[in-house]
Amino acid sequence: DGGGVESLDYEVIENYAYWDEQAQRGKLFVGYSVAVKWLYALFIGIGTGLAAVFINMAVENFAGWKFSLTFALIQKSYVAGFIVYLAINLGLVFSSVYIVTHFAPAAAGSGIPEIKGYLNGIDIHGVLFFRTLIGKIFGSIGSVGGGLALGKEGPLVHTGACIASLLGQGGSAKYHLNSRWLQVFKSDRDRRDLVTCGCAAGVAAAFRAPVGGVLFALEEVTSWWKSQLLWRVFFTSAVVAVVVRAAMGWCKSGKCGHFGSGGFIIWDISDGQEDYSFGELLPMTVIGVIGGLLGALFNQLTLYITYWRRNHLHKKGNRVKIIEACLISVLTSIISFGLPLLRQCTPCPKPDPELGNECPRPPGTYGNYVNFYCSKDNEYNDLATIFFNTQDDAIRNLFSAKTMHEFSARSLLTFLVMFYTLAVVTFGTAVPAGQFVPGIMIGSTYGRLVGKFVVSFYKKPNIEEGTYALLGAASFLGGSMRMTVSLCVIMVEISNNLKFLPLIMLVLLMSKAVGDAFNEGLYEEQAQLRGIPLLESRPKYQMRKITAKEACGKRVVSFPRVVKVADVVSILRSNQHNGFPVIDYSRNGETRVIGLMLRSYLLGLLQSKVDFQHSPVPSDPRGSISSRHNFSEFVKPASSKGISIDDINLSSEDLEMYIDLLPYLNPSPYIVPEDMSLTKVYNLFRQLGLRHAFVVPRPSNVVGLITRKDLLIED
Amino acid sequence: DGGGVESLDYEVIENYAYWDEQAQRGKLFVGYSVAVKWLYALFIGIGTGLAAVFINMAVENFAGWKFSLTFALIQKSYVAGFIVYLAINLGLVFSSVYIVTHFAPAAAGSGIPEIKGYLNGIDIHGVLFFRTLIGKIFGSIGSVGGGLALGKEGPLVHTGACIASLLGQGGSAKYHLNSRWLQVFKSDRDRRDLVTCGCAAGVAAAFRAPVGGVLFALEEVTSWWKSQLLWRVFFTSAVVAVVVRAAMGWCKSGKCGHFGSGGFIIWDISDGQEDYSFGELLPMTVIGVIGGLLGALFNQLTLYITYWRRNHLHKKGNRVKIIEACLISVLTSIISFGLPLLRQCTPCPKPDPELGNECPRPPGTYGNYVNFYCSKDNEYNDLATIFFNTQDDAIRNLFSAKTMHEFSARSLLTFLVMFYTLAVVTFGTAVPAGQFVPGIMIGSTYGRLVGKFVVSFYKKPNIEEGTYALLGAASFLGGSMRMTVSLCVIMVEISNNLKFLPLIMLVLLMSKAVGDAFNEGLYEEQAQLRGIPLLESRPKYQMRKITAKEACGKRVVSFPRVVKVADVVSILRSNQHNGFPVIDYSRNGETRVIGLMLRSYLLGLLQSKVDFQHSPVPSDPRGSISSRHNFSEFVKPASSKGISIDDINLSSEDLEMYIDLLPYLNPSPYIVPEDMSLTKVYNLFRQLGLRHAFVVPRPSNVVGLITRKDLLIED
Ligand SMILES: Nc1ncnc2c1ncn2[C@@H]1O[C@H](COP(=O)(O)OP(=O)(O)OP(=O)(O)O)[C@@H](O)[C@H]1O
Ligand SMILES: Nc1ncnc2c1ncn2[C@@H]1O[C@H](COP(=O)(O)OP(=O)(O)OP(=O)(O)O)[C@@H](O)[C@H]1O
Ligand SMILES: [Mg+2]
Ligand SMILES: [Mg+2]
Repeated sequence: DGGGVESLDYEVIENYAYWDEQAQRGKLFVGYSVAVKWLYALFIGIGTGLAAVFINMAVENFAGWKFSLTFALIQKSYVAGFIVYLAINLGLVFSSVYIVTHFAPAAAGSGIPEIKGYLNGIDIHGVLFFRTLIGKIFGSIGSVGGGLALGKEGPLVHTGACIASLLGQGGSAKYHLNSRWLQVFKSDRDRRDLVTCGCAAGVAAAFRAPVGGVLFALEEVTSWWKSQLLWRVFFTSAVVAVVVRAAMGWCKSGKCGHFGSGGFIIWDISDGQEDYSFGELLPMTVIGVIGGLLGALFNQLTLYITYWRRNHLHKKGNRVKIIEACLISVLTSIISFGLPLLRQCTPCPKPDPELGNECPRPPGTYGNYVNFYCSKDNEYNDLATIFFNTQDDAIRNLFSAKTMHEFSARSLLTFLVMFYTLAVVTFGTAVPAGQFVPGIMIGSTYGRLVGKFVVSFYKKPNIEEGTYALLGAASFLGGSMRMTVSLCVIMVEISNNLKFLPLIMLVLLMSKAVGDAFNEGLYEEQAQLRGIPLLESRPKYQMRKITAKEACGKRVVSFPRVVKVADVVSILRSNQHNGFPVIDYSRNGETRVIGLMLRSYLLGLLQSKVDFQHSPVPSDPRGSISSRHNFSEFVKPASSKGISIDDINLSSEDLEMYIDLLPYLNPSPYIVPEDMSLTKVYNLFRQLGLRHAFVVPRPSNVVGLITRKDLLIED
Repeated sequence: DGGGVESLDYEVIENYAYWDEQAQRGKLFVGYSVAVKWLYALFIGIGTGLAAVFINMAVENFAGWKFSLTFALIQKSYVAGFIVYLAINLGLVFSSVYIVTHFAPAAAGSGIPEIKGYLNGIDIHGVLFFRTLIGKIFGSIGSVGGGLALGKEGPLVHTGACIASLLGQGGSAKYHLNSRWLQVFKSDRDRRDLVTCGCAAGVAAAFRAPVGGVLFALEEVTSWWKSQLLWRVFFTSAVVAVVVRAAMGWCKSGKCGHFGSGGFIIWDISDGQEDYSFGELLPMTVIGVIGGLLGALFNQLTLYITYWRRNHLHKKGNRVKIIEACLISVLTSIISFGLPLLRQCTPCPKPDPELGNECPRPPGTYGNYVNFYCSKDNEYNDLATIFFNTQDDAIRNLFSAKTMHEFSARSLLTFLVMFYTLAVVTFGTAVPAGQFVPGIMIGSTYGRLVGKFVVSFYKKPNIEEGTYALLGAASFLGGSMRMTVSLCVIMVEISNNLKFLPLIMLVLLMSKAVGDAFNEGLYEEQAQLRGIPLLESRPKYQMRKITAKEACGKRVVSFPRVVKVADVVSILRSNQHNGFPVIDYSRNGETRVIGLMLRSYLLGLLQSKVDFQHSPVPSDPRGSISSRHNFSEFVKPASSKGISIDDINLSSEDLEMYIDLLPYLNPSPYIVPEDMSLTKVYNLFRQLGLRHAFVVPRPSNVVGLITRKDLLIED
């Protein structure tokens, strides 16, 4: 516990300081802050779009260069080719793991559980640092370019979130703009909105799926729903789409090396199967079930392995992490190069000028029917077509229509088993790693396998194996990540085919239902393992029988309105709480709760010292607080740990002084009566994104009732 | 006020009765209730799908029959043709307005504002009745078949919601199943979930856009977000897609008359423009701006006209409503038949065997280039092609690619002005009426107009006027309805083309931004006008400066724990409130608020009388309440007004008795301290869908603090 995990404050603190600031704001400021928010949405879109283009360009160029070199060498010697292939992969993976271990430890993994945590209300130390951003970008170039069984899409979501957060604070923790300009984004609440935009932008850029990005952010990542924000998120995604499109257009002319031919994953299957019959629903259901089973198994296996890694392997230090990644890289290279060598080649199908499928294709070019280690000239190696290739091209080949019977069942099965194993083993190494593309690989393999059976069983001419591969991909992702609407839209957007929308829906529902019978979604499992305390959408059943009073801590640590500095220091030292009720004692001994004081505010007050006073008598709260304080003092920056009580030096004179807390406390935190069931408290907490709620005794009387009518105020 | 508008209770009332029930529920019941919920989602999907198919089939057959008769007649005499055309239209419209005025007044209009209200927490009397459902289905067949400038999509949403609600209560208010079976859906909360499913199913069926349906329900209609529900809504939409597809397949063989050729609106433009250049973004922005302006104007004009109608015209009774609708029908017939007569025909373009565009097309068949009142044989009448046609076919022609220069600017402009006027005038008549299809008509007309300019200005071969028509349609809908993500997905799904997604996003953002500068969205404006007190997503700015205490009513009407029946009756008679605090007086004069009592529960207790007791002493609340009461007594059925205090007959003996309210009150309503700002109260209210919140004095002490840690309970 306490490992840098801390809640965020999404509540608006309506204290005197806030009112003071509100009073200073003119109409102009409101307009200005709206404009800045939109401008930032634009910047986030452009930034994330460019980052995505950069990563893709680098990966494609590294991979393209690697494969062309290897293919050139194997014309002479397969051994030399293999050694070079292995060395390049190793080098890239090493660079990635080195960057991550020595420079940006928070950049390991996909980052989606962490971002999910952030938007659920938990700040995990290091997730939104500048160095994490850098580590993520360069690390994922290395790990993906190095041919590991992982993708660059998850990391792009993290990248988008980092860009958003860093833009919001005007730079990194050390070097940043500190103009009045950026005051707009100084609360956790505003930062959360930015990070949501960044997260959507990441998905939009990764899959070129702008609507999918918006939905991903809303369905999977955030835990609340605000329709104003929806619009801004939507705008960010649109900007990303435009930026990426512009870059792709620019690259078409060949200015970007290998990038442009493969590049952004869109596996266009719009020329695939035209229609489907009801009889096909059965095999599609089977795909859904397989997806649910394999997805749940994937979650479970990765959970065990990550658990073991965290508690045994990775405790031994960075060197072990590096060795581990390098070993996995070598293993991946051996399998992806070696297995196709063992596979016998297949004779090419009769050339059909209508389809235009060249066979065999000379090694090193993109497309189906690759000739690799074949004895005859008009043969191809189906395993090499998917295994000894970049993942993007492999998926393109698996999705491809009009290539019936290209892959043998044995090759597909071999690939499935080997790649699944590799994906499980690779998951959790200390490199940036996404699970989308490996998931699509796995899913499309067994999808195509089922497709083969359907083609030979139903014997209808219009059934395409590629369609089943697409459905398989959807089912595996659904079975592992358990998203519905967003995944469905993403699958449609990447395959550029709307005809299969109902089928994708069916398969997703099936695989999610099957998967849910076994365990939770991949990101939830991982978040739990990493100690990210997500509040899930549904309260636990037994909460119905627990009251708020039973749930909360017993002895409350509170402050009086005017408090001695020495007391503040000793209380803050003695516990880890982040919020304290403030209680006012009147003359006649009656007490009244006047608000909630946050630790971060107390620390700010202690550090600045300007509010120290000599007498214990309350002062007039209506002074101009904003002249004494810059409000960003009280808010923890997103990209640092913030100050702690031990960082503050106070003289013994200071310790004898007093502070009046009234101007700084939150006068109206949300309250719940002590016998409210925890279910209701939970809903309150999650829906409003709270950090603290006061449990209070039953009130003695009711001042009034608020109904809908009272909230309908005319402008 | 009080015109049948009442809030819904979305809160779970954790009273003794509830606990009693919970205790009786076994594990089996939980599983059973989950199963029933999914089964209902299936039923709603099937029901809405079938209703949509029925409506479409009827409309297409009426319209097809009308046009073929008219075209047959005009071969001999245009006068005879016109008279028959006018008479059929008039007959259909009359039947529609007659049904609505005499049988189902709540079926008038689109119903979307009402459903939006329902899901926001307000029950409008009559909206979910069985007769409304019937009126909606048959009324919209008449109004759409009768050629008025309105659509059947809004009514389908309402239809879906009605089906869902009626299924949930097992039939109509009079005749319904009352088995223990349906106990699952007895609270407003569960009904809300059903209605959400129904609403999504309606959109999914109307546009054959399952994902669009889900998003429409979430973005536009509901005001909360619950991820478990998302999944069920998604399932319902998928079922609708399958049902509709099956029906369409069945109809292809010609079993459904005219239906099958036109039918469900999908304006496939997947063979349209392939790509776009950055220079085209400018005219597209122009389209967005025009859409925003015309959309906002539409909202404003319809607002004025509806206002006038409600306060002057429709007050005069049903006869005036019928005459009005009939007059508009005659006017529509005259314009749609007459204007094409005045228009000079255009010579056909050179036949191009590659495109296969037949010209001229014989009257009465579907497609472009219709020959209507032309002097020469190889001429066509471009105005007739869009005006003297069903709206579906007109849109298909406007969206069509490879028909460059088919429509003259003059015809488009004439059509735009006339149709816009008709749509404004027709809006608000007493017939079921949607605004989607008219909006698409208007938008695609000016879109195509802009497209014409772009084609002649940029002179690039790959620009299609149809693409601009699509963007125009999106822009008008965006400018009027102000949706973003859902509209975007719906447009993509109906046009079956993903390439233009970023462009549609751009256009929507632009038109929404422009429109928002003038007024609110169509549905919000209409809801306001109809006195539906929607809680919008953003609290008003001035709420920041109002405290909860200032906002709520001053003198609270409350009950003691044990109350005399006579007092209950007189209090319930003396006011209209629906919730009352219950206050317990202890011996030493101290008071304690023990909960909230709902009017509906009090009425239920008064009516059943089983809880009356002779002594004013509190009884033991832990009796088996469920043996005394069936819980549906306390909940207002969705499709009736519920009982009122005047319906209850009590003898004078009864009036002298007492009731102990403790077992029936809500022991922990949400409470807010009196000086919390109204903004915060608003957020609480809206996010949790509350009906009542207690305003209480500042507490004297804090029992504990709830933080995230307290909510993380292990299973
Ligand atoms: N002022 C306080 N006095 C007494 N108990 C408290 C106080 N604040 C929190 N607690 C209790 O301490 C426990 C956790 O303490 P803590 O304040 O660290 O919250 P947390 O869940 O870790 O959230 P955060 O991320 O804000 O630190 C909870 O059980 C909570 O009820
Ligand atoms: N028990 C009560 N005692 C005093 N005032 C009340 C009470 N209940 C409601 N009010 C006040 O009466 C006004 C509206 O009354 P009403 O109870 O009809 O609520 P409403 O907004 O119409 O919601 P509903 O749809 O539930 O009737 C509000 O200003 C509210 O503050
Ligand atoms: Mg803590
Ligand atoms: Mg009322």
